[in-house]
Amino acid sequence: MAVNLEPPKELLAVPGALVGSAAAAVKAGSVGGALEQRLDVAVFSFADGADIGGAYTQSHFAAAPVVLARARNKHARAWVINSGNANAATGEPGQADADSICGTAARFLQIGMEQVQPFSTGVIGERLPVDRINKAVGECYRCLEADGWLDAAMAIMTTDTVPKGTSSRFDLDGETVTITGIAKGSGMIKPNMATMLAYMATDANVAAGVADMLVEDSLGSSFNRITVDGDTSTNDCYMLACTGLASHEEITGREHPLYSPLLESVRAVAMELAQSLVRDGEGATKFVEVRVTGGATAEDCLSVAYTVAESPLVKTALFAGDANWGRFCMAIGRAPIAKLDTRGVKLWLRSMQVSETPHTADAVQVADAGMMCDSYTDAAGAAVLAQDEFTVHIDLGAGQAAESVWTTDLSYDYVRINAEYRT
Amino acid sequence: MAVNLEPPKELLAVPGALVGSAAAAVKAGSVGGALEQRLDVAVFSFADGADIGGAYTQSHFAAAPVVLARARNKHARAWVINSGNANAATGEPGQADADSICGTAARFLQIGMEQVQPFSTGVIGERLPVDRINKAVGECYRCLEADGWLDAAMAIMTTDTVPKGTSSRFDLDGETVTITGIAKGSGMIKPNMATMLAYMATDANVAAGVADMLVEDSLGSSFNRITVDGDTSTNDCYMLACTGLASHEEITGREHPLYSPLLESVRAVAMELAQSLVRDGEGATKFVEVRVTGGATAEDCLSVAYTVAESPLVKTALFAGDANWGRFCMAIGRAPIAKLDTRGVKLWLRSMQVSETPHTADAVQVADAGMMCDSYTDAAGAAVLAQDEFTVHIDLGAGQAAESVWTTDLSYDYVRINAEYRT
Repeated sequence: MAVNLEPPKELLAVPGALVGSAAAAVKAGSVGGALEQRLDVAVFSFADGADIGGAYTQSHFAAAPVVLARARNKHARAWVINSGNANAATGEPGQADADSICGTAARFLQIGMEQVQPFSTGVIGERLPVDRINKAVGECYRCLEADGWLDAAMAIMTTDTVPKGTSSRFDLDGETVTITGIAKGSGMIKPNMATMLAYMATDANVAAGVADMLVEDSLGSSFNRITVDGDTSTNDCYMLACTGLASHEEITGREHPLYSPLLESVRAVAMELAQSLVRDGEGATKFVEVRVTGGATAEDCLSVAYTVAESPLVKTALFAGDANWGRFCMAIGRAPIAKLDTRGVKLWLRSMQVSETPHTADAVQVADAGMMCDSYTDAAGAAVLAQDEFTVHIDLGAGQAAESVWTTDLSYDYVRINAEYRT
Repeated sequence: MAVNLEPPKELLAVPGALVGSAAAAVKAGSVGGALEQRLDVAVFSFADGADIGGAYTQSHFAAAPVVLARARNKHARAWVINSGNANAATGEPGQADADSICGTAARFLQIGMEQVQPFSTGVIGERLPVDRINKAVGECYRCLEADGWLDAAMAIMTTDTVPKGTSSRFDLDGETVTITGIAKGSGMIKPNMATMLAYMATDANVAAGVADMLVEDSLGSSFNRITVDGDTSTNDCYMLACTGLASHEEITGREHPLYSPLLESVRAVAMELAQSLVRDGEGATKFVEVRVTGGATAEDCLSVAYTVAESPLVKTALFAGDANWGRFCMAIGRAPIAKLDTRGVKLWLRSMQVSETPHTADAVQVADAGMMCDSYTDAAGAAVLAQDEFTVHIDLGAGQAAESVWTTDLSYDYVRINAEYRT
């Protein structure tokens, strides 16, 4: 039931990146054994000299693999990922389990154990089936190939309804460069929680440390601008490997002339993956941009945007298609910003005009000067909110800053999926 | 469908406080005219020399009546309240409307207009039916009586399912003192939002300004410790009138020996009203205390408690009766506190043992040292969560501070009520 999201048809091979996937029945262990052939382990191996960057969850309860992956960010050459079990809240035994799996991958790949970054997603508080995963790592190794991305997009899914991935091929100083990425989002595995994981690779040629810069500089307009329910997992990670096999001049840092064009391409892939996570958010029936302009600062804009995007009263109104000025003004009013002159606040609803929707001429203005417009009608607002995708545009009338976040509505299915209601 | 909440059978008269209620069809205007005889306006009049204190919403979009009521806190002698329309996001015309109503009340009561505090709750962004309300104010005046509290508890309801009120009579230095309070909570009026309003009066004899101290000192353990969905309304107010007719010595401030016993009684009434709002929270099927102990600071405890209490993933698990350690640890992990050594975190589930529930010997310990206990079974946790009322007790293992907040689960009915789903 994802909102306007199709599985990727093709994911482009990235020179210097090999991917293999296998089934270890980790997922099967959680759902009763019926699906034990599902792919749930993936191994990525990168060319010598690849530069890897990452952003890791800020949860105090960061899972064992996240702690290890973060520590190994600088020298990594490989990723090993399992779905079905998050290896979180498992203490030191959990770290030992993650290291056993890294050790297996390292032996096959003939690299050091500290060059392997582990990742897990799924059930919390349970030990990993280490033997089965170690066996699957061997199978992944034997099927490593440049074209393995689509299988890996399947292997990292939990209860995502659609595998998520995208590729981009572009020209960098006369050379063709490729970026491919996969991600998983807001799925639930009984009895646990959502995890956001994203893995991207490019053959762009960068100096050591530049991958981290690209991650940092692209995060703010992609994975750090989405929210389904405001909940942050113990395992969230966004990873980027730059294999360096493209023959353009090495990009040495943010000042290098090729950094910006590369960043734009990385950002576009990250943004598409991030939005795909929202489109497949739990119980989502709407894909909604909350755009805040006219802020005194970008922080004010983000604060208002997240308060609106995460308000249960706003989200249920979006689900109902009810263009409710009262709820928007309630959420704007409680945003934790230092001051707001509400007499400057405006609000519009605007269709994103995707699919076959005919072009609607203008945005519908709901509020002006902090009050509902005389010209506004519920019917006009409802016509926008009846669509699958729309923008809630708030102008604070206080400055020049602007930010957007992407979110979903709050539906019966959100409750059903997360309550696993027993009839 | 409130959780273990009965309407009050009797509310005690408070010497020096008169209450009158009437119907102005403000509610009817919102629901189609079928219920126009429902009480929706109330007037409170207090004896000369009464001291009034209040706490007002911190929303940037504070409604017109809230702005006036806050400004008149010091010299007030009367309250005029309507339900059905919040007079919020109505700009200067809204302030003029509120003042017209205050003026009417002032003429009847023969006091100054600036001695009347206005309050409204209901639909946002629409003008009040001022003429009908002014007429109803006259009717309220003609039926002012000491025993009018129960009618007023009805008059301030929006879609609360149960009127809320409580009384307390106690000894203060050999004199009998009474406190009575009423409140309304998380109701929805199409197309709008929840508002928390509480009105209390006591005949305690206090110096000017002491009512404000009592409000401030009781807020932190009552109305500021409850959450249904994390959303704050434009109209929230908590008011306390001290009429001064009791014959004990005047309480001059926090240092006076009678201040603490009076505060304890005020706090107990405020706490009971606050908890009744949660019990009647939208779609609530559970009444849940989130207790956090062992924090380095009280702020850390509150931060963790609110993050857990407002997490949609935790709330849906509470609805399902699913004792899900993964979700608790996710929410604790993302609480915005400076640092947390997760190896010190413990979690228990404990029945509140109300109604006929037999006494269960002990709390069920779910987690120790940041990990699920070996001894813990899902069945033991589910047995606690199957009850109507229980405590989620988290110990952070970092210090001596402790705080509690009270909340509900997140049910299908929450979505239904707030989405006003059209079949």
